[in-house]
Amino acid sequence: MQGARYDTVSFLTDYGTSDEFVGVVKSVIRDLAPHATVIDLTHEIAPFDVRAGSLALARSIGYVASGVVLAVVDPGVATHRRAVAIEVAGGAGVLVGPDNGLLAPAVALAGGAERAVELTNAEYHLAAPGATFAGRDVFAPAAAHLCNGVDLYELGEPVDPGALLPGTIPLPRDEGDELITEVLWVDRFGNAQLNVGPDDLPATWGTDLQIRVSDPTDLTGSTVRRATRATSFAELAGGAIGLVVDSYGMYAIAFDQRSAADELGVAAGDQVVLTDLGDPAPVETPVRFGRQ
Amino acid sequence: MQGARYDTVSFLTDYGTSDEFVGVVKSVIRDLAPHATVIDLTHEIAPFDVRAGSLALARSIGYVASGVVLAVVDPGVATHRRAVAIEVAGGAGVLVGPDNGLLAPAVALAGGAERAVELTNAEYHLAAPGATFAGRDVFAPAAAHLCNGVDLYELGEPVDPGALLPGTIPLPRDEGDELITEVLWVDRFGNAQLNVGPDDLPATWGTDLQIRVSDPTDLTGSTVRRATRATSFAELAGGAIGLVVDSYGMYAIAFDQRSAADELGVAAGDQVVLTDLGDPAPVETPVRFGRQ
Amino acid sequence: MQGARYDTVSFLTDYGTSDEFVGVVKSVIRDLAPHATVIDLTHEIAPFDVRAGSLALARSIGYVASGVVLAVVDPGVATHRRAVAIEVAGGAGVLVGPDNGLLAPAVALAGGAERAVELTNAEYHLAAPGATFAGRDVFAPAAAHLCNGVDLYELGEPVDPGALLPGTIPLPRDEGDELITEVLWVDRFGNAQLNVGPDDLPATWGTDLQIRVSDPTDLTGSTVRRATRATSFAELAGGAIGLVVDSYGMYAIAFDQRSAADELGVAAGDQVVLTDLGDPAPVETPVRFGRQ
Repeated sequence: MQGARYDTVSFLTDYGTSDEFVGVVKSVIRDLAPHATVIDLTHEIAPFDVRAGSLALARSIGYVASGVVLAVVDPGVATHRRAVAIEVAGGAGVLVGPDNGLLAPAVALAGGAERAVELTNAEYHLAAPGATFAGRDVFAPAAAHLCNGVDLYELGEPVDPGALLPGTIPLPRDEGDELITEVLWVDRFGNAQLNVGPDDLPATWGTDLQIRVSDPTDLTGSTVRRATRATSFAELAGGAIGLVVDSYGMYAIAFDQRSAADELGVAAGDQVVLTDLGDPAPVETPVRFGRQ
Repeated sequence: MQGARYDTVSFLTDYGTSDEFVGVVKSVIRDLAPHATVIDLTHEIAPFDVRAGSLALARSIGYVASGVVLAVVDPGVATHRRAVAIEVAGGAGVLVGPDNGLLAPAVALAGGAERAVELTNAEYHLAAPGATFAGRDVFAPAAAHLCNGVDLYELGEPVDPGALLPGTIPLPRDEGDELITEVLWVDRFGNAQLNVGPDDLPATWGTDLQIRVSDPTDLTGSTVRRATRATSFAELAGGAIGLVVDSYGMYAIAFDQRSAADELGVAAGDQVVLTDLGDPAPVETPVRFGRQ
Repeated sequence: MQGARYDTVSFLTDYGTSDEFVGVVKSVIRDLAPHATVIDLTHEIAPFDVRAGSLALARSIGYVASGVVLAVVDPGVATHRRAVAIEVAGGAGVLVGPDNGLLAPAVALAGGAERAVELTNAEYHLAAPGATFAGRDVFAPAAAHLCNGVDLYELGEPVDPGALLPGTIPLPRDEGDELITEVLWVDRFGNAQLNVGPDDLPATWGTDLQIRVSDPTDLTGSTVRRATRATSFAELAGGAIGLVVDSYGMYAIAFDQRSAADELGVAAGDQVVLTDLGDPAPVETPVRFGRQ
């Protein structure tokens, strides 16, 4: 009765690729909805790191093809978190995963939840030989059946979209002359994305900023560096430290072809304090008096 | 003359993904059978670990879409092991790979080998510029031609299905009050699957078991812990150690959101001894006499 | 107006798979050219290692399906390197990527550049919210539009194919009795491919060669071993060291089921000196005189 409705499943997990988990989930989708193509976003989210997963999904959501987004980072699989499917953008997309905040930032960026269900209808689950493997037994079949045209409300009980668990992306804090920011993400190349975009900096601040990174395990010290604001990586020649507006529109601490994160010793979740240093001074010739 | 027969190739190897091996094999399949979709199960089997590969394939086989299964873990590529294709389930599936035990457990789970050939027909091989890269030059073309409708017996000499090399999955051993088991698999989350299912434990055993892990490099000690049998991870709240019936129907040693394998120091192949501890005692208030 | 022209994009980068970069690029292609299938060659080229990327691409190019090859290893993204598309083989293939030598060996193996453009036409780019992510915003749309039948010359300004940056694959050097070679690649199994094929060795040399590996960090020593030339890994029984003609037609230092690279301490880029040792001597029974 139903025609194929979606033909793309965009897929993100913390499953890694050493085990066959990702392959088995894709096999289930292939079996139930052979017309659908699965696009892997990433499966290397650190185990149980819901925040990192939600951020990767938020960075991706503007680019995924319309269809189903299947995301599983699920430390609460053993507890009573709900398995949900959330329709967005007039039905152009459905996000499927645990209701633990993982999907929330992406849902918000896609315009907000319009309809939502808890995946309670066991007719659309696979029977497990033992404990439920939610990705394989609940989420993958839901994604496949949605691709096949099954209506969202067939998959389970309606859920009030306003009652879905929100995500928790930290906002920067203004403390006098300082802006307290946080590293959201360190990418493979060592760029450290902050939770600050160009509009979040005071308009009076100049081109040069001080960045201060405190090592929480070393109370005696912190790393302080001068960084120059840049609108592209192309301006970072010659080993300068930059606060570059990255390809997602956020400031990232970046070094020219080296890992900023390694040099500064920062990781996702670390605090970075920004202070205005005004505009760069004209180059001065140092003049020295007396003995050196 | 032949129509497309299969449109899915499920693919498992020990090639890793750092080199282009997996991509080249897929390119060969794409070139010869463009209608076929390749589903990666995993390529991170440890190099030459036939047992681990055969177990991952056995865990997957119940879920793969009908079609071709291409599996290559091949320490004997340099020796005279045979390259084979094995038909199962009335032709619903064909497993392609080396005849070294890798395919055997999956073949058995799929109902047993019905027809088999050695891939000796060089017309269906690629010519290599040097040494044969079996995945690229022999197995991938075989998989692709099978997808295109080439009959199994065109690919080479028939092989007696009963003469295929069997797999070697260890069985648990009953030794008086003890059950000697083995860790089959440690997954990304640290759950340690044993070669024991619920039907393998004596019916008289209670809910609580003792698990004893011997460190073969340390003759002086072994780790002994109390574990509770559980039918799902959901029962494992509060840091308890569980013997959970995992999503494949086998017992796995599992900790709540921590790696059981790390905590106990176990890896695939290690021995674990189980002993009955009866049912949990009622909670007692300890009463102590005398000096502490 | 245009019909689908290519339906395969073969994809190689240094993006890794921990971040969602690969998935986002694929999402862009999926969105713009839903009929195209993306085949991952590898994404684990070391960050910014153009040479390693160009070699992996060269090893793959003979096997990729006709269509678009999208390759991005791009340390110069911040500088004024050009983004290009290069047509080869009478239009059977187009290589898309940075003009930094990455594509050059593959282009040469595919018969040479026939038409080339710089990807300057912004109508075929995505608008970035910040800095340009070239893979997502420039290269992926170019690949997708080529698949959709857009003509190469619509994507930007024509470039003289002779002005494209060449690759830099080192040639072996003949120094008297010695042949100075270089390790091109160490694969997952530890085989160390040299920049020497069977035709590069003097015809007078025998079956046995001396291989000398100098440790550049240890001036006092070098590792010297006897190796036997072999035309396949099958001849390497019993722990012998072989110089095997590998599956790409080049000599590789190989050990039977062990990592030659680990045993000899060599990595890509290291120098290996080959010297003739003639043919193996007949087996001699050692005779010893006097006290040992």
